Amino acid sequence: MAKIEKISPLAPTEFADFPEIDGVLLATAATKMKYQDRDDLLCVAFPDGATAAGVLTTSRTASAPVGLCRQNLSLGKKARGLLVNAGNANAFTGKAGEDAMMATVTVLAAELGCDTNQVYVSSTGVIGEVLDDKKITAHMADVVGNLTPANWTAAAGAILTTDTFIKGAVRTATINGVPVKINGFAKGSGMIAPDMATMLAYIFTDADLPQDILQALLKETADRSFNAITVDSDTSTSDTLLAFATAKAATGKITSLDDPALADFRAAFADLALELAHLVVKDGEGATKFISVTVTGAEDDRAAKVISFSIANSPLVKTAIAGEDANWGRIVMAVGKAGEAADRDKIEIIIGGQKVTEDGMAVPGYDEDACTRHFKGQDIELSVDVGIAEGRATVWTCDLTHGYIDINADYRS
Amino acid sequence: MAKIEKISPLAPTEFADFPEIDGVLLATAATKMKYQDRDDLLCVAFPDGATAAGVLTTSRTASAPVGLCRQNLSLGKKARGLLVNAGNANAFTGKAGEDAMMATVTVLAAELGCDTNQVYVSSTGVIGEVLDDKKITAHMADVVGNLTPANWTAAAGAILTTDTFIKGAVRTATINGVPVKINGFAKGSGMIAPDMATMLAYIFTDADLPQDILQALLKETADRSFNAITVDSDTSTSDTLLAFATAKAATGKITSLDDPALADFRAAFADLALELAHLVVKDGEGATKFISVTVTGAEDDRAAKVISFSIANSPLVKTAIAGEDANWGRIVMAVGKAGEAADRDKIEIIIGGQKVTEDGMAVPGYDEDACTRHFKGQDIELSVDVGIAEGRATVWTCDLTHGYIDINADYRS
Repeated sequence: MAKIEKISPLAPTEFADFPEIDGVLLATAATKMKYQDRDDLLCVAFPDGATAAGVLTTSRTASAPVGLCRQNLSLGKKARGLLVNAGNANAFTGKAGEDAMMATVTVLAAELGCDTNQVYVSSTGVIGEVLDDKKITAHMADVVGNLTPANWTAAAGAILTTDTFIKGAVRTATINGVPVKINGFAKGSGMIAPDMATMLAYIFTDADLPQDILQALLKETADRSFNAITVDSDTSTSDTLLAFATAKAATGKITSLDDPALADFRAAFADLALELAHLVVKDGEGATKFISVTVTGAEDDRAAKVISFSIANSPLVKTAIAGEDANWGRIVMAVGKAGEAADRDKIEIIIGGQKVTEDGMAVPGYDEDACTRHFKGQDIELSVDVGIAEGRATVWTCDLTHGYIDINADYRS
Repeated sequence: MAKIEKISPLAPTEFADFPEIDGVLLATAATKMKYQDRDDLLCVAFPDGATAAGVLTTSRTASAPVGLCRQNLSLGKKARGLLVNAGNANAFTGKAGEDAMMATVTVLAAELGCDTNQVYVSSTGVIGEVLDDKKITAHMADVVGNLTPANWTAAAGAILTTDTFIKGAVRTATINGVPVKINGFAKGSGMIAPDMATMLAYIFTDADLPQDILQALLKETADRSFNAITVDSDTSTSDTLLAFATAKAATGKITSLDDPALADFRAAFADLALELAHLVVKDGEGATKFISVTVTGAEDDRAAKVISFSIANSPLVKTAIAGEDANWGRIVMAVGKAGEAADRDKIEIIIGGQKVTEDGMAVPGYDEDACTRHFKGQDIELSVDVGIAEGRATVWTCDLTHGYIDINADYRS
């Protein structure tokens, strides 16, 4: 891959300090499959099992690991292991790729003493190259021998590809008065696009939740976090968001997503997912600005999201922001091309808190210098009311810069 | 605008040499509205009227001139004039913009001695700035006085914005044995995207065609030319394709699009439009490669076009081609994200004539060096069969380079 010369300017100054979570063990290893100087293999084990939930890519060319996760989730058994490798997506590799994946699963299941359908797998990296399973299985006994409750930061680092920093987030909450922990980490920097769980992200908790509720919670959360971000509008074949609950905290019976006892946890879970999703955007390939796009006044929330993404994916909007040019005419263009209802003569565009349009044209005498100053910052806030009804949505993206071209014009070499 | 340092490397080595067309007069002027060193105003007159047809942007934030063209077309009167200015799109300018436009139309109609609804208008440039109509009307008497049948190249040049070369095409055909001419010119370089008549393009002929047939011909043609190209997936608020037929050639009565007498003209018309559309792509902002994407085996032609555009608009595919990296895994990704039916295990990708995938994986031992050599050329040919049914489509695009960022990160200054 293109050498990442420096960390994203949007990287947080402090990284998450992960607490241990009862029932979760982690270990990493270096397969040297692609990266020569770092760990690129992650194994997570749940010795006493964990309830699993997942949101997976909607791609029609989904990878073998995505298919395996989907199948395992449908079987509903307790998860016992998670295996992630970085550098090879094992996507579009046909039967050979499937066989390679199953070879790794079989070895890990044997090491953990569980069924193969209790092992979840993700692979991330180049598409179209068959995984060399021996480079993984050769390390399996060692990795399983190294499993400890403390390896979180190494784990979050082992799954990275073009990322420039580790993406982790931690929360605590109480359920029925019992404190629980939630840890999450993610990877992703390019090939990041909406309408599915984007990139790889894992959330772990010691809460005791039935699978259907964990799944419903994860779906709800994904729609407002990972499914509300975009770097380049390109959707990976491997996008995977998984959540594991070890039930080690005696949090009592939860009967529905709306159970009041779940409210605190639900909020903390959503908040953690949003933090991870924002971190992915902040490490967007070449990103120098973090952009929040809110659309209100749309026909419904779905329409608002479509319009938001039309703005957030527009190369012209993203290059204008990169150039610190408050060229809001391009926002008008992006609203227009979205195909959703918008009343041209009622559109209000607000940049960094300042209203720049009303009555279908520029606000007379609006302060363009203030807009430009806002665009010179790192956090850009765009709001658009399209004047139809009450639908609203917020999505997040980054600017489109020379850095994106640098990274992607020669990713494989 | 950002200074264009040099002409696109994909520019044709010879430009169209326009013949005169009976019934068409042209003149240009320099308003100095934005560009200080060139003509930026075009006036075309049809002294004896011309049948008009148009395909206009589907944008929900369409400009005032687009609205005017749509209204005039619906009235069906003979066109008498066309006025185009470059540098200001007069889009999203509310009532003030509408009034400014009508002020220019009123003056031109008076000069030409026709009704205002016989005058077509296009404006291209920055969105959101009200047109200063006096900068146009001040030149109107002079421009009308300068109308001649010979000003074609100046006309094609006056409508340009970020374009680096003039885009013209000429054809001849016969209808019922009578020779007719077809001239066309276009502008467009960025904010170029599918599903509407893209950018500004004008086609003129001396053929004698009823409006409904000219309109049907234009629509059919647009779908396979201007509506099958993309530079950056961004759709202009001002996209306009107009055709004018002066009926100066006594070509006899044509009763339908399928009239055998129209076959030669129909083919020439489509061919001219395709040449213009290709020229727009070849002047795509920052373009260094011309890319043709053909999808076969899709559910239907519509699905094939969606998948084609998913590939042609993918920033990752376009940056890989810019980097001359035959990373076809990104094509797999783009097929997958299109949302249309595709059989992962039957997808065949052909790069520059060489099949690189079959059975859902790389063809064993395919010649990657040959792919790389193909990517080092200027004409890139990608074909994908998605293994479902018989739908097919071809679209055209360019690569995504540092040049695009250079041009668009600071367009307005």
